[in-house]
Parts: sequence; C-alpha cells; structure tokens
Amino acid sequence: MPTDFQFTLQATDSGTAGRMGLWQTPHGVIETPAFMPVGTKATVKGVWPSQLKAIGVQKILANTYHLALRPGPEVVRDLGGLHRMMNWDGPILTDSGGFQVFSLAELRQINDEQVVFKSHIDGSLLQLSPEKAVAIQEDLGADCIMCLDECPPHDVSRERMRAAVERTTAWARRCRDAQKRPDQALFGILQGGTDRALREYSAQGLLPIEFPGYAIGGLSVGEEPVEMYDTLDFTVPMLPVNKPRYLMGVGRPIDIIEAVCRGVDLFDCVMPTRNARNATAFTSVGAVKLRNKKHMRDQSPLDPECQCPTCTQFSRGYLRHLFQSGEMLGPMLLSVHNLAFYQRIVRELRTAIHQNRLNEYRAAFKRSLESCPVEP
Amino acid sequence: MPTDFQFTLQATDSGTAGRMGLWQTPHGVIETPAFMPVGTKATVKGVWPSQLKAIGVQKILANTYHLALRPGPEVVRDLGGLHRMMNWDGPILTDSGGFQVFSLAELRQINDEQVVFKSHIDGSLLQLSPEKAVAIQEDLGADCIMCLDECPPHDVSRERMRAAVERTTAWARRCRDAQKRPDQALFGILQGGTDRALREYSAQGLLPIEFPGYAIGGLSVGEEPVEMYDTLDFTVPMLPVNKPRYLMGVGRPIDIIEAVCRGVDLFDCVMPTRNARNATAFTSVGAVKLRNKKHMRDQSPLDPECQCPTCTQFSRGYLRHLFQSGEMLGPMLLSVHNLAFYQRIVRELRTAIHQNRLNEYRAAFKRSLESCPVEP
Repeated sequence: MPTDFQFTLQATDSGTAGRMGLWQTPHGVIETPAFMPVGTKATVKGVWPSQLKAIGVQKILANTYHLALRPGPEVVRDLGGLHRMMNWDGPILTDSGGFQVFSLAELRQINDEQVVFKSHIDGSLLQLSPEKAVAIQEDLGADCIMCLDECPPHDVSRERMRAAVERTTAWARRCRDAQKRPDQALFGILQGGTDRALREYSAQGLLPIEFPGYAIGGLSVGEEPVEMYDTLDFTVPMLPVNKPRYLMGVGRPIDIIEAVCRGVDLFDCVMPTRNARNATAFTSVGAVKLRNKKHMRDQSPLDPECQCPTCTQFSRGYLRHLFQSGEMLGPMLLSVHNLAFYQRIVRELRTAIHQNRLNEYRAAFKRSLESCPVEP
Repeated sequence: MPTDFQFTLQATDSGTAGRMGLWQTPHGVIETPAFMPVGTKATVKGVWPSQLKAIGVQKILANTYHLALRPGPEVVRDLGGLHRMMNWDGPILTDSGGFQVFSLAELRQINDEQVVFKSHIDGSLLQLSPEKAVAIQEDLGADCIMCLDECPPHDVSRERMRAAVERTTAWARRCRDAQKRPDQALFGILQGGTDRALREYSAQGLLPIEFPGYAIGGLSVGEEPVEMYDTLDFTVPMLPVNKPRYLMGVGRPIDIIEAVCRGVDLFDCVMPTRNARNATAFTSVGAVKLRNKKHMRDQSPLDPECQCPTCTQFSRGYLRHLFQSGEMLGPMLLSVHNLAFYQRIVRELRTAIHQNRLNEYRAAFKRSLESCPVEP
C-alpha cells in the first residue's frame, strides 16, 4: 500500500472551512489548494510542459479513457509511462475512464461486473471493469489514480442514484483489491448527487476502505452552482480531515473559491484551456472576448495585473489579430494566460488561508466580478 | 536614404563562391548566410518568438499581402509596427505582396500602373502599385523591404518574360522614388527566369539604382533544381560583391547549400514549418515521417544529433502520438525542431566558409542524403 503520500495541514482559516496543506507524492510536494490543468491525451493543449512549470503548475491530470483508446496503455508504458512520455516530472493524476465511458462513448451494457462500450474513435467494442481501470492506470503510471465509479446524470431518480452509490462502493473495494503498485495513491470517489442521505451512504461505504484521499464526484454535471455549494456544505465534513479532498471537474474561478471555503484541496477543469481556444480570457477585470472589434488597435496587455509570459509580451490587439487570422499562436498564448490566471487564484487562496482572511478574499473576488464590464 | 545597413564580408571560401558576412540592420547584426523563418501573418506558426531566439533565429519574414488584407497596415502601425506587435526585437523582412497577388488572388487587371485583384478573404477589389507596396511596408515597419516586381510562371514565352523584366525595372525605380523612411533597406529584385540574357537585362536595369541589397526572384517557381543552380551560376556574379544577396523562397536544405556555394547570403522558406505541420521532420538522417507506425514505441529522440528543445525533451513515440491524436503540441514541437535544423545548416555553412572547406561540407551533406534510409 502507498507509503509516500503524506498530507500535512499547514494552516486552517478561522472564518471558513478553508485549509492549506502540503501533499507529498513520488514526484514532488504539492501545495494545496491546488488546480490541475487537464492534459486529456497526455498534453495540455497548446502548452509546453516547461511553460506549465514556469507559471507555477504543480500537478496535471490526464484522461484514462482517451489514453486507453490511443495510443493504448501498453504503448504509454513502453514509452516510459506518462511522466517520461510527456516530459512532465511533477505529479500526475489520472481519472478512471468511467466518466468518459458514460459521457462520450456509446454504452452497450452496464452491470455490476463491468461496462461494455463502443470506442468513439473506431467503434470497436471495449469493456471497462474496476480491475481493468486500475490495471490501465498502473500502466499509465500517474502518482494519483481513481477508482472506477458510476456517475449518473444529476436528475435521475433517487432509486437509481442509490444504486449508483452502491455500485460505486462495490467497485471501490474491487479497485483497492486490484491495486498492485505501491507508489500510486488510489482515491475513492463519493457519489450521491445533491442528496445528503445518499452522500452519507456513500461515505459510510468508502471510508472504511481507508483510501489515501477522497474525491467528490457527481457534481458540476448540470446542477445549479448553489446546489453544488450546498452539497459541499454537508459532504466535505463527512471526509477525513487528514487526507486530501478532490472536487472533480470544477470549475469556474468562483466555484473553486467557494469550494476552498468549504474545505476542498484539489481541482481540475478544462475551462481555462478550452476557453482559451475559443478566444475567451479570464482576467482580473472579468471575462474578455478577444474577437471583439474594440480590441483591434489596443496596445495594452490582456490583463494589466498579470505577470504571465503572454501579458508581459503581447497586446490585446495582437491577440485579436491571431484569433481573427486563425493562427495557432492565439490559442497557445491564451492557454498560458488562462492557466496562469487559475494558478494565481489558488496561490492567492493559499495566502488568504495562511493570513486567516479567506472570507475577505472571497468577498473581494465577488465584488470584482460584479463590477466588471460585461462585453457584448 | 538608409544609412544603417553596413554589409561587411568576413570570409570567402577559396573553393566556391561562398561567403560569410555581417549585415547591420536597425534591429541588430545578422551573420550571413542566414535563413529566415516565414511568419506570414506576423507569427511563425506554432512558435513563440522567445523560442525562435533560443534556437538561433536572427531574422524573420512576414508577408505584406496577408497583413495588408488583415489586420491592415494602419492597424499594424497603430499596434507599434511589426516588431512591437509580434514582440520580435530582431530584424524583420517583408516582401512586396506581389508574389501572393499573382499566386493567391484572382487577378482582374495588370498594367504598367498597377495590379487590380480580388481579396482571397472577402472578394473585395483591391489594387497594388509600386508606391502602395512601399507605403504599406513603411506602415508595417520591417528593417528590410522589397520592391514590387512581376514574377511570371517559369514557363512563359521569352517575350512575356522580357516584358516582366522591364516592368519590374520600371516599378523598382518608382519604389525607390516612393520610399520615405530612411531606416528601411529597400531591395531590388532581379527577374528573367532561367535565361542568362534576360537576367543580365534585369541586372543592367536595377544596378544603376544602387539598392542596398538585391534579391533574386523568379526561381523555385517550378523549374528543376539543376536549372535553378545553373541560373545562380551566371546570375549571382552580376550582383555587387559588397551588398547582401537574397534568394527568395528557397528552399530545401540542399538548395540552400548549393546557393551558398554560389554566393547567396539570405534565404526564406515555409518548408520547415509547413512540413512540421504535416508531421515530416528534417533530421541528420534524412526526412522522418512521424505518423509512421514504426515510431509508436520509440523512446529515442527524433534526431540524436540535435540539441533543440524538442529533441532533448521528447521521444519519437510521443511525437507520433501527438500527431495521431491531432494535438496542437505535435506541430508546435516539430516546428521548433525543423527550424532548429535549418539554423544548424546555416551555422555549419558559416563555419565551413570560415574554415575554407565549403566543398567538403557540401559533399558530406550529399553523402548523408544518399545514405539515409527512405521511409515508406
């Protein structure tokens, strides 16, 4: 069983449930709260790994489903595992593949044993079981891996949600039993939607397995933000204090701030890079749509408060030109900036917790959103 | 008239017409022979300017035709000119726009006064005259700008080729007369195809205008390589010894080597970056097609002799995965490598000239091409 994954609380905020910690992994120590950029196919789209390092990224996420289909887990293993293959020597987390099987693939069959689905690439029939999800993730070689879970849509019946919780718990035991590598932290995933009793039921099933960390799944899947915050209000306290807590697939900067105030430590989301490719920037003055004509002759930086390589070297006018011309450099520059913005948020959150003023930080951030100019 | 463009010969090769020089421009000194990556729309596709610097790029080329259509010369000027807009503080060269008008746009009319053409972006009717080509390039603000010339297909009648030479000479005088900025070197462009008498006729027309440098146009437009080399054999000696000579749009590494042996100083070509986007690498062991299945599990670098950021950080197997997955990072990494390969060629050429062994270098390069494994 893993021995390298010490999680140490450094500070807690007195006005909220926010906490700051150090999490030791085989590829380095992560300061939490932390945000993981998404490198679906073993690359954070449009960004060199050295650039991720330079803007303060500590850990990245890769998607098991995509990598299992192409190039395949054995190929990743033969290329030295994810770290060596993509030249990222920091920590990596992989998901179980389950979320994409349920959202991307054409499902053929799901039972307690396994999921059978059609590859979205070539239509071939494939199967994923708890044992297989662990075996694939052992080939990929991330520091932190995830149990296979069932994540139903947020609006299914309570009965179906309860069945998903039970299956997720049973699969979590099988994942734990299947784990062979001692150098990977296997996380259990809570399900149960926005239902307090079901979240408790899920926690009761998973906590006795004593995973080295716990993820909260089944949020940010279509419910209202306030429902997510309410769910976190009662779910996070169910989790052990001395282990990292990971809110999967979240989210907007405000969602991350609200979740940190409720005691969450880890986040991942495609928003910064996906928005970058669509010419939308996160800035200290709100969202900026770079295709807007008003930026055409603007020599000023995208975000005057940002010290990232994009904001210190290029103007809004040039960024607009790149997007209007369909040039790769546009998404490249904006991905670096948006990721730097997210890193800045979590860095500021750590400082705010350390200084016991997390509520103040949250309030100031909300005010800046309210006062920001809305772009047409 | 320009005063900042001192060209100093540092060494000449005794066995060939090869020469090594230093060319002073307002944005720094260029060591020649030099290769300019093409940044058509004010960006070398997929590469940060800082990365170009890091691999030894001295000067880049941007295309007047594309920038004149979008974002427009006034916008580039308002964004501080090309250097500031694209954050490249080294020398820049712009072409006149003529080549693209003849090759990309739908021509409506050409006479001695001007060319009228349809924009390939929105179909609007535009015109380009020698005066306008200079005015646009003065807005763009490159260090080195080009006269508007007429570059006919290589297989037109001698009569039409002669007319193109005459028009090119007349337009060159008008460009010279139209030039207002003293800080840009305006180059004359020789035309005349592969015909010695017409090249002489072109030189006789342009040399008295005393441009600070001369370009050889009308080559690499469909003729055989040996015809190009033969044309260079008799054309280069027509040009002044004490001014830089620029062979436009060339070419493959072997073409650059052959042209340097004939006394050419400057080159530009889209090949390194365009091939990179198509998954084809230039290496010391010949062309490598990265989509080939044999690279799937290959942990070795693309080119073991290359010290570029791509070859020192990533494997052939990972590069193949990126291209197979349609990831931006594939073209990004390969563009850096291919450009680094071209920079290495011109660096080695300068050393070979300095050491008086250019013939030896050319012979060794040819042998390496002959012995390289041909990929299926």
